Amino acid sequence: MLVRDAMSTVILTVGPAHSLRQAAALMSARRVGAAVVLDPDAGGIGILTERDVLNSVGLGQNPDTERTHAHTTTEVVFAAPTWTLEEAARAMTHGGFRHLVVLDRGEVAGIVSVRDIIRCWVPAREPAPAL
Amino acid sequence: MLVRDAMSTVILTVGPAHSLRQAAALMSARRVGAAVVLDPDAGGIGILTERDVLNSVGLGQNPDTERTHAHTTTEVVFAAPTWTLEEAARAMTHGGFRHLVVLDRGEVAGIVSVRDIIRCWVPAREPAPAL
Repeated sequence: MLVRDAMSTVILTVGPAHSLRQAAALMSARRVGAAVVLDPDAGGIGILTERDVLNSVGLGQNPDTERTHAHTTTEVVFAAPTWTLEEAARAMTHGGFRHLVVLDRGEVAGIVSVRDIIRCWVPAREPAPAL
Repeated sequence: MLVRDAMSTVILTVGPAHSLRQAAALMSARRVGAAVVLDPDAGGIGILTERDVLNSVGLGQNPDTERTHAHTTTEVVFAAPTWTLEEAARAMTHGGFRHLVVLDRGEVAGIVSVRDIIRCWVPAREPAPAL
């Protein structure tokens, strides 16, 4: 199975000046753990995850005044839609990420998460046993 | 490979009266996405995840005044240390969880996450290709 079969193609996009509160509200409502941050001034594509929000809250910062651009990872690892899920899993494990932005001919085509990969790997197997 | 080989045995435990800010600070410092919430009054073991913190922030709540007990999932799905990773992955997918609390003879023995499972599944495979 390939990344294109597992990825989410409905991508949440936020701007660099959104507050972390606004980004959290959007991620929460969409039930996604990551948003793509498009920042033309910074020249590229970044990613903001729920872990970034957690870290900010943990540092005592105010989610209403913190802006996404200060918490965005801009050194994003991209996957191609034609990667296998094993290749994506390896890139995630190697980099310590739970999300990869999927690029197709330079355009954002989707996001694939560890949860997407797990979901696609298990359906053919038998149910978990009772404890 | 079994759950006991993949799980984290160093477990972050918080109380029901911790603020979400305190819980976030602990999770952030330990680099974990979930904490076990021990609440003797509620009679059991709960789990608080970074998604719960995100949801609270997204709802406009104040992390300094929100208490963990109001955001804890108490209907926890437990795994046994002897489950296979496939069984754990299936339970996670079925329930929509990214963490399972691992119980051994009624005691909390660890937490296993989707990331732990991915990490254990990939090492034997070749590197991801360049784009």
